[in-house]
Amino acid sequence: MSELLSPEDLEKRLREIGATRYHNLHPFHALLHGGKLNRGQVQAWALNRYCYQTAIPRKDAALMSRLTDRQLRREWLQRILDHDGCGDDPGGIERWLVLTDGLGLDRAYVMSMEGALPATRFAVEAYVRFVYERTNLEAIASSLTELFAPSIHRERIAGMLENYGFISNDVMAYFRKRLTQAPRDVEFALSYVKREANTPERQQAVLDALRFKCNVLWTQLDALHFAYVEPGLVPPGAFVPDDVR
Amino acid sequence: MSELLSPEDLEKRLREIGATRYHNLHPFHALLHGGKLNRGQVQAWALNRYCYQTAIPRKDAALMSRLTDRQLRREWLQRILDHDGCGDDPGGIERWLVLTDGLGLDRAYVMSMEGALPATRFAVEAYVRFVYERTNLEAIASSLTELFAPSIHRERIAGMLENYGFISNDVMAYFRKRLTQAPRDVEFALSYVKREANTPERQQAVLDALRFKCNVLWTQLDALHFAYVEPGLVPPGAFVPDDVR
Repeated sequence: MSELLSPEDLEKRLREIGATRYHNLHPFHALLHGGKLNRGQVQAWALNRYCYQTAIPRKDAALMSRLTDRQLRREWLQRILDHDGCGDDPGGIERWLVLTDGLGLDRAYVMSMEGALPATRFAVEAYVRFVYERTNLEAIASSLTELFAPSIHRERIAGMLENYGFISNDVMAYFRKRLTQAPRDVEFALSYVKREANTPERQQAVLDALRFKCNVLWTQLDALHFAYVEPGLVPPGAFVPDDVR
Repeated sequence: MSELLSPEDLEKRLREIGATRYHNLHPFHALLHGGKLNRGQVQAWALNRYCYQTAIPRKDAALMSRLTDRQLRREWLQRILDHDGCGDDPGGIERWLVLTDGLGLDRAYVMSMEGALPATRFAVEAYVRFVYERTNLEAIASSLTELFAPSIHRERIAGMLENYGFISNDVMAYFRKRLTQAPRDVEFALSYVKREANTPERQQAVLDALRFKCNVLWTQLDALHFAYVEPGLVPPGAFVPDDVR
């Protein structure tokens, strides 16, 4: 890419990446939302996804440790508050554990991440490293998958409540909360990226960062699908659902 | 050191480090609090110290990016809130800028850190790197200079208000606020260190971390003293007070 895009065209290109690469397009998601998974497969999804959830504040702190602009740090801090909680708000990670509790998983086992797929851990840590090592602009751009999150969350709340007897309304609190949090966060990040990506090289870096992040999410579903759907080869040491024990 | 100290003896050793190495013992501090500096020298101190203040939330975020324990992150987050502020609280860095404003320094110049001594910047960045690279225990132990901070702050508030016509009560807000914040923070860090430093090697690492941090603070005053007191050789590019221009 050699020409400078207008901010609007850059946003269009970013949204195209979401339309072709976001993990709502993964077959595992169709199975999850469509009620095609059994309880053990949903458990596997939830306990693997915990690894991602719990790494998010570390990723956000990694960015903050590099931000010399106090206003930007103050803005970004809200994400850590959302996930880790503060004062009376237990935060998003706790809400995720309410979901894994509701699925009948032992909380200590989930938090130990012992049963998670190695591929999940690798993908998640690749994301944290990316934020450490790349420019602040790329780190911020990598958060832009939140542009595509609210629709997947809405779909998930409806689909999972409708299709699974073992999913109650209470345990979906995480997703309901993200419906309001994600749009607020992404509005800031998108304006930042559109303003700061002011050379063709920086625009390319921003698009690549979003592709990278889509890969982080997609890879996690590939690993789940491989281990728990088809061919269903659970790697040594990873969670084995009761259904198939 | 080969024997394991009791937690109480470890605390005693930590406090001994403060009693012999904390920067309240530096001659520059005696001059500062005793009213022996002119306005330009106090300006030099405040603008250099800004570099330290503004790096603290980055240092704390660097630690948080490595903490996998959510409760620990929630605890540590308070420090970032204290320094960067949140909501209506402008935070400690802003309060520091009120001090530099009150000293007649241009805020943009202070924030640019252009006039800061290179030695200040090196010491501050060494602290941030230390927190990135050492164990979480060492990183937390390096914060324990806060054990010794309240007494220096009290001394500073009294001494500076009494001795300098150009220091008003308002501009000392930073130090007054730290009188309550630092003890709360350090109580947590000290218990953590006493509990987690449970081998002779870890105890040695903790003592070394506190010595390191004392060096970070002391070196900054050495550089100020050298440049602005005696021999008074301001390095190329560093702040030159009006008094001596």
